[in-house]
Amino acid sequence: MGSNVPSENNAPKALSMENLNPCVKEMEYAVRGPIVARANAIAEELKQGVKKPFNKVVKANLGDCHATGQKPITFIRQVLALVTYPEVLMKSPNFPDDAKQRAKRILDACRGYSVGSYSESPGLLAIRQDIAKYIQARDGHPSDPSHIVMSTGASDGIKSVLTLLLTGKGGTERAGFMIPVPQYPLYSAATTVYNAYPIPYYLNEDNNWSLEISELERALEEAKPNCIPRAIVIINPGNPTGQVLTRENIENVIKFALKHNLFILADEVYQHNVYAKGSEFFSFKKVMMEMGAPYNMMELASFMSASKGFMGECGYRAGFAEVINLDADVRAMFNKSISAKLCPPVSGQAVMDVIVNPPVEGEPSYQQFIKEKETVLAQLNEKAKLVTSLFNSIEGIQCNEVQGAMYAFPRILLPPKVVEAAKADGKTPDAFYCFALLEETGICTVPGSGFGEKPGTYHFRITILPQVEELKEVLGHFKDFHLNFLAKYK
Amino acid sequence: MGSNVPSENNAPKALSMENLNPCVKEMEYAVRGPIVARANAIAEELKQGVKKPFNKVVKANLGDCHATGQKPITFIRQVLALVTYPEVLMKSPNFPDDAKQRAKRILDACRGYSVGSYSESPGLLAIRQDIAKYIQARDGHPSDPSHIVMSTGASDGIKSVLTLLLTGKGGTERAGFMIPVPQYPLYSAATTVYNAYPIPYYLNEDNNWSLEISELERALEEAKPNCIPRAIVIINPGNPTGQVLTRENIENVIKFALKHNLFILADEVYQHNVYAKGSEFFSFKKVMMEMGAPYNMMELASFMSASKGFMGECGYRAGFAEVINLDADVRAMFNKSISAKLCPPVSGQAVMDVIVNPPVEGEPSYQQFIKEKETVLAQLNEKAKLVTSLFNSIEGIQCNEVQGAMYAFPRILLPPKVVEAAKADGKTPDAFYCFALLEETGICTVPGSGFGEKPGTYHFRITILPQVEELKEVLGHFKDFHLNFLAKYK
Repeated sequence: MGSNVPSENNAPKALSMENLNPCVKEMEYAVRGPIVARANAIAEELKQGVKKPFNKVVKANLGDCHATGQKPITFIRQVLALVTYPEVLMKSPNFPDDAKQRAKRILDACRGYSVGSYSESPGLLAIRQDIAKYIQARDGHPSDPSHIVMSTGASDGIKSVLTLLLTGKGGTERAGFMIPVPQYPLYSAATTVYNAYPIPYYLNEDNNWSLEISELERALEEAKPNCIPRAIVIINPGNPTGQVLTRENIENVIKFALKHNLFILADEVYQHNVYAKGSEFFSFKKVMMEMGAPYNMMELASFMSASKGFMGECGYRAGFAEVINLDADVRAMFNKSISAKLCPPVSGQAVMDVIVNPPVEGEPSYQQFIKEKETVLAQLNEKAKLVTSLFNSIEGIQCNEVQGAMYAFPRILLPPKVVEAAKADGKTPDAFYCFALLEETGICTVPGSGFGEKPGTYHFRITILPQVEELKEVLGHFKDFHLNFLAKYK
Repeated sequence: MGSNVPSENNAPKALSMENLNPCVKEMEYAVRGPIVARANAIAEELKQGVKKPFNKVVKANLGDCHATGQKPITFIRQVLALVTYPEVLMKSPNFPDDAKQRAKRILDACRGYSVGSYSESPGLLAIRQDIAKYIQARDGHPSDPSHIVMSTGASDGIKSVLTLLLTGKGGTERAGFMIPVPQYPLYSAATTVYNAYPIPYYLNEDNNWSLEISELERALEEAKPNCIPRAIVIINPGNPTGQVLTRENIENVIKFALKHNLFILADEVYQHNVYAKGSEFFSFKKVMMEMGAPYNMMELASFMSASKGFMGECGYRAGFAEVINLDADVRAMFNKSISAKLCPPVSGQAVMDVIVNPPVEGEPSYQQFIKEKETVLAQLNEKAKLVTSLFNSIEGIQCNEVQGAMYAFPRILLPPKVVEAAKADGKTPDAFYCFALLEETGICTVPGSGFGEKPGTYHFRITILPQVEELKEVLGHFKDFHLNFLAKYK
């Protein structure tokens, strides 16, 4: 450091690549990485009239429902408009009574009857009560509103829980977090920024991305000399992998966590997104509760979001965590740490309230709500099947069934010449492939390397969100591209 | 760690007070600390009919405008309702054209014409363009939308910038952050959680909380053996102290930062809240630009919020940072770190857009908007003066003029018997005082110790937000309490 001599040609910098936080330097977040920057640049070029072999960029990189044409659920937006501008809209005949009732319930919980006031730090109590009822109905086991912490999207809640588990120490005394590979890169990014130690465990692609206990044991054993293992992250339904865990698989993970005294973080944001026949969503909490003691006393944080499911309200950044079985003193510390965040956006809390407390039979909005919800889910179901079967019809691509969530994560079998060409280009082979796909078709996907994959295997993640007709068109372009690409590098 | 033997009476805990993140354990956040918990409990008791010497709790602990009766600005809520439910409301005659135009501009910038889609990570470009125009008009110097990063409240942006400055190391190689004392406790809380080193510098209460360079030099020199000083935080207008820095004072701070190669974080969220005659808000950027080279090349992050000013839209959690003069490579790393957060709430972004791009003369909403805005600011002005003069009329209380922001931070002269009684009660003397105030009058303030204060001095923070009549009543109760309290411990 030291002082700078002021002079006109000397731009003094307190922050340089040499003294920037090394954890920030190291951190990666593929979902919005360089390929997305290139996609944005191409979209801009198209706008300016540059000729391309396609006329629009299809952003299949992000689980962003409304961006790809899904319409908001009317009832959610009605309640939201009402809480925003109640003075006038509460008297409007354009809004049904059940929407007005829900809006009033939310406003009554807000200080000063305004969503512009801060809520309690973990979210408005009335909404946490509704969330507890939702969880209870889902699982058949009680839920306590004081165990629920709302957050700015699920990500924010995940980071709050991970923060509790850090050791405050470096080197081999760092906290170790078991993270699936492939994984949603929030987990690796947060682990890196927090200077914690990632313990990757591989999902078994050959068994539809199952989670095998022998692999968990291997991963943990290998990591033990390097860190203090503290927690295991499970994403179910899987992102980017789309599998839905069986109840038995969940039981085995819980036993493993108990054996090794690990805190369980269950990312269950896709709990509404299950498509495959025979697949069913089981929450970790439900399974733990039904396994009885001592499993039903284990610590668990389960995360949910307003951004996925049938609602897809990403922009409101709403989420919650149910955190159970904390030691009482630890709970107090957790609450204190949450209080320093003031509160998550109240508009997002209101969105979540409608999701957990939707219109019921007999209410004026019920029919329309159910119709809109089921339409979205039926379309996602159709698209999941479409994507799986199309990818598997292409030579050199293998795709596990998209049982749930919003993505396919097909494996691409790339010949050695591609690997060489990628190396020469300074890219991973799958990034090389995805960039070529983008340049030639306008389809923006995310290379599998951004999520992690077994060495020597190559994948990409593509959302199943585009509208059916568009998706069919996209997949058609895809097939042509793939065959040309393989021919080129034969 | 190690494995647990499952048994019915053994609740296995992965997380205990022994292995909880020590930084979380140590962190404090007074604004929502134990006194607020007690205030909530008292409110609950009142609801249940418990007799008290008062009939309601006055929450003067938090700068929460709408909670204390301030009405939302109509135009903000009109635009918000329109972007929420455009399908129906865009056709409604209840909404003026200028609100519809702004809503359309925001929706055009949203993917899929929905505030339910994710925005770009630093916020919608169209809104960042409006912010840049606002800054340019405020300062008379250009602003670049690509230097603006929107955030979930200002706090989130502050944390993002502090994160860049961490060293990733422990002990004496930790990053040191210069923080004013008294300060808004976000800064001390974040410093603690990030395992950084706080470098407190005292504001000079005897000179209306001025910021003296000799004190900055002292604080820095003392800290140098313990950390690597990286940044200085300035809060202007001051929170909790209410002072407005002079231009000369700002110039001297900038020179100090250059001399010691410190990154400047200017918390300017109260830029609309200046009341005192002769006081004027100067942004750090404006002053730096007008000082010329090399000062105009220094790194600066300036923070703004939708929660304060005349709008007080706390619940939407909207804020932005303008971060200038970053090294290009560092900028890329900053952008990458922001991308891992997906995006701040889009509804909050929309609120910010209205704040920086309000109705102008000739537009249909102009008159009402100006009237509402000026009414709020005039009331705050009146309340700032009321509070200052009332506190100074009470024996044993000294209060600097509330020149800006939303708080008074009076000093209370407590006799030795109070100090003893507090000690016996396990509280700081000002916490002891504030708890007594709460129990006897229902007024919830925050003890000065939560913001930091010179050893041997005692203060509390009280917001000036309650409505004028209520504030007068509160201050009346206050005076009675204070005189009784002093008499008791004479």
